[in-house]
Amino acid sequence: MNDDSRMLSWERRTTVPLFVASLLFLTSYAVRVLVHDLSPGWDDLWLLVTAVTWTSFFVDYAVRLVLSGQGLRFVHHHLLDTVVLVLPLLRPLRVVQMYTVLKERQAQARLSLYGRVMAYASVTALLLGFAASLAVYQAERGAPGASIRTFGDAVWWACSTLTTTGYGDVAPVTPRGRVVATVLMACGLALLGAVTGSFSSWLLQVFTREDEEGPSER
Amino acid sequence: MNDDSRMLSWERRTTVPLFVASLLFLTSYAVRVLVHDLSPGWDDLWLLVTAVTWTSFFVDYAVRLVLSGQGLRFVHHHLLDTVVLVLPLLRPLRVVQMYTVLKERQAQARLSLYGRVMAYASVTALLLGFAASLAVYQAERGAPGASIRTFGDAVWWACSTLTTTGYGDVAPVTPRGRVVATVLMACGLALLGAVTGSFSSWLLQVFTREDEEGPSER
Amino acid sequence: MNDDSRMLSWERRTTVPLFVASLLFLTSYAVRVLVHDLSPGWDDLWLLVTAVTWTSFFVDYAVRLVLSGQGLRFVHHHLLDTVVLVLPLLRPLRVVQMYTVLKERQAQARLSLYGRVMAYASVTALLLGFAASLAVYQAERGAPGASIRTFGDAVWWACSTLTTTGYGDVAPVTPRGRVVATVLMACGLALLGAVTGSFSSWLLQVFTREDEEGPSER
Amino acid sequence: MNDDSRMLSWERRTTVPLFVASLLFLTSYAVRVLVHDLSPGWDDLWLLVTAVTWTSFFVDYAVRLVLSGQGLRFVHHHLLDTVVLVLPLLRPLRVVQMYTVLKERQAQARLSLYGRVMAYASVTALLLGFAASLAVYQAERGAPGASIRTFGDAVWWACSTLTTTGYGDVAPVTPRGRVVATVLMACGLALLGAVTGSFSSWLLQVFTREDEEGPSER
Repeated sequence: MNDDSRMLSWERRTTVPLFVASLLFLTSYAVRVLVHDLSPGWDDLWLLVTAVTWTSFFVDYAVRLVLSGQGLRFVHHHLLDTVVLVLPLLRPLRVVQMYTVLKERQAQARLSLYGRVMAYASVTALLLGFAASLAVYQAERGAPGASIRTFGDAVWWACSTLTTTGYGDVAPVTPRGRVVATVLMACGLALLGAVTGSFSSWLLQVFTREDEEGPSER
Repeated sequence: MNDDSRMLSWERRTTVPLFVASLLFLTSYAVRVLVHDLSPGWDDLWLLVTAVTWTSFFVDYAVRLVLSGQGLRFVHHHLLDTVVLVLPLLRPLRVVQMYTVLKERQAQARLSLYGRVMAYASVTALLLGFAASLAVYQAERGAPGASIRTFGDAVWWACSTLTTTGYGDVAPVTPRGRVVATVLMACGLALLGAVTGSFSSWLLQVFTREDEEGPSER
Repeated sequence: MNDDSRMLSWERRTTVPLFVASLLFLTSYAVRVLVHDLSPGWDDLWLLVTAVTWTSFFVDYAVRLVLSGQGLRFVHHHLLDTVVLVLPLLRPLRVVQMYTVLKERQAQARLSLYGRVMAYASVTALLLGFAASLAVYQAERGAPGASIRTFGDAVWWACSTLTTTGYGDVAPVTPRGRVVATVLMACGLALLGAVTGSFSSWLLQVFTREDEEGPSER
Repeated sequence: MNDDSRMLSWERRTTVPLFVASLLFLTSYAVRVLVHDLSPGWDDLWLLVTAVTWTSFFVDYAVRLVLSGQGLRFVHHHLLDTVVLVLPLLRPLRVVQMYTVLKERQAQARLSLYGRVMAYASVTALLLGFAASLAVYQAERGAPGASIRTFGDAVWWACSTLTTTGYGDVAPVTPRGRVVATVLMACGLALLGAVTGSFSSWLLQVFTREDEEGPSER
């Protein structure tokens, strides 16, 4: 119980800094992928930002590993955290966790249940799509026969992939690009399914409520 | 409460005129995109229709902003309305609201819950698909290397996009066309998900009812 | 009430003959589309089958229109029947109705609720897919630049369309083929959504049941 | 009851050996498809593995057929088993059954209901996707005009098919490859639908729980 409360207190204090660190990590990655003629000084700075933020993720993981007092079982029980530690571009997947902390600061939730699921799944899908666009662009640019040649193409590809439309006018051709694509499909589809499902449930709720309110109005 | 009732009364009175204005806006946009050799007089007329209807949307928004007495919080609470004001081609998304008003005029709803969700989501998806076809056709025609060359191609593209099939035989290549496509995918998928989900629930209901009625018939 | 019972009795007696007529209609259509060098005699025979079965659909519709005593409201209330009358290739959509009649002849239903929804939606989707393959093949063969050149291509296209995969290696290019494709997408998606949704619910049920039975076994 | 208990006891004892046999079957199939220059000795060995494991499936089916004492009705009631017997590459579909047995050996289930559905549907989809990649690769390699030329292409094709994205940059062109593709689409979609649906339900549950716990924390 004591460990648990120290764990909770640690998580409460670190979530927002870690979220800021995630955004910084994503920004530094984006800058280094997208800006071609970075002066050496700036390049070093952004590399430093990448290194520092990634280190902070390791520190947080280590602290929680110790605080939990579970040893290796912690790794097993926090699989998502472990994966996200190695592939920080997947960090957006942890957005739900941050929500819990933020919510306690607000007196009340203003969005309905479905609204919140839609909002958080959408934000996560957007961040994942952005991260995947960057990673695919990095893997594909310069590859012979690539159809993804600009970052705009990569974003367009990510949109058509996340919605499972898959036009195929642009598609990754390198093994690394295809691995990124598979991860995006697997994670993104589940998130988008959550958005669609919640919207559908919300619409049904709206119509049901009208049925119930109808008689009393007349 | 007084403001609320005046708001309600305003919305009740304006919904149908605004819906007609939306259709006029869509029609004038369609004519100006599709009819190539419009005589200057007709062109001016349709431009006027566009201008007048768009203005009426602004007037309605302003009146509701004042009536609500909420100031900037109104913008925050009516995000969909604000978006629709700037991009009137998305107006079909407001169709659900009109339904509430229309329903009060009818004595009873004749469709079941799922039937209504399906009907309204389908109509909204159709109108959105039509608006997106127009916008994509306008963006793509004349672009070098475009695969969407006729309005028929644009409609075909919208159908295969809305259903997430995405053959890719025709696909937008211009940045503006791709932005339109992304909006269509995001909105359309949610709507189509609602249609599919409702149909699935309705089918389950039909089969369940047969189970219950079965024994009593024999 | 009297009209209702005569209506029910009529429907009970005609469903199976009408289903056989539907299959005959589909067969005659298939033969005339697929067999290229039909001798004139056989061609006339199959044309006759088409004509007779189609006429039987009209007779059935007319009898039910009269028995219902509703006049034009019947057309409004039986929209699906009316559509199916004009486009008999959509007949598979009426399969659910036949199920009700068949069920009364069996003492008990042997499939679970989800099983039945899956079975009937699958069968309907299969028949629709077959009918659409035929119609698309008829529209596309001979069209310049068509990618659907054999009936095998058409079946492959129907499979990838029904599952919304949409590879796009084969896709209709003629207006008529694209209209058929749109109908297939719209109807097929809803049916496939029902299959997927029911399977998902059934899987959840299987796992839930194991949870409940688990403790008692140990 | 006696037959039932002997049946249960048989199934309890054979599930794990049969699962190992399935993996061996898949491995031997994979080796023979993927390793091009297998020395005759090794080739014979793997052929033997294929034959022995397949035979073991037949033996198991026969024993259960006799134990059930149902004769031909057993074939009707265990359709999935019968299909899987003839096409052992579909064996992954039986993974759910193995789960029941494994679970009895564990004292408690550690995953939530949705977690288990997701885990088992994912594993089954992965195994099916792998088996389909092998089968499609075997059918397509060497075919004139094939776009699936390496096993990597086949895996990439299976990923984009299972998620219904369907880019179409690689797609089967041979009849056999297309039949495999259709089976993968039909089975895979249902499984992926289960994963997506469960994830969506799980997310809703997470948010609902927070709602309920919220007030008590404050």
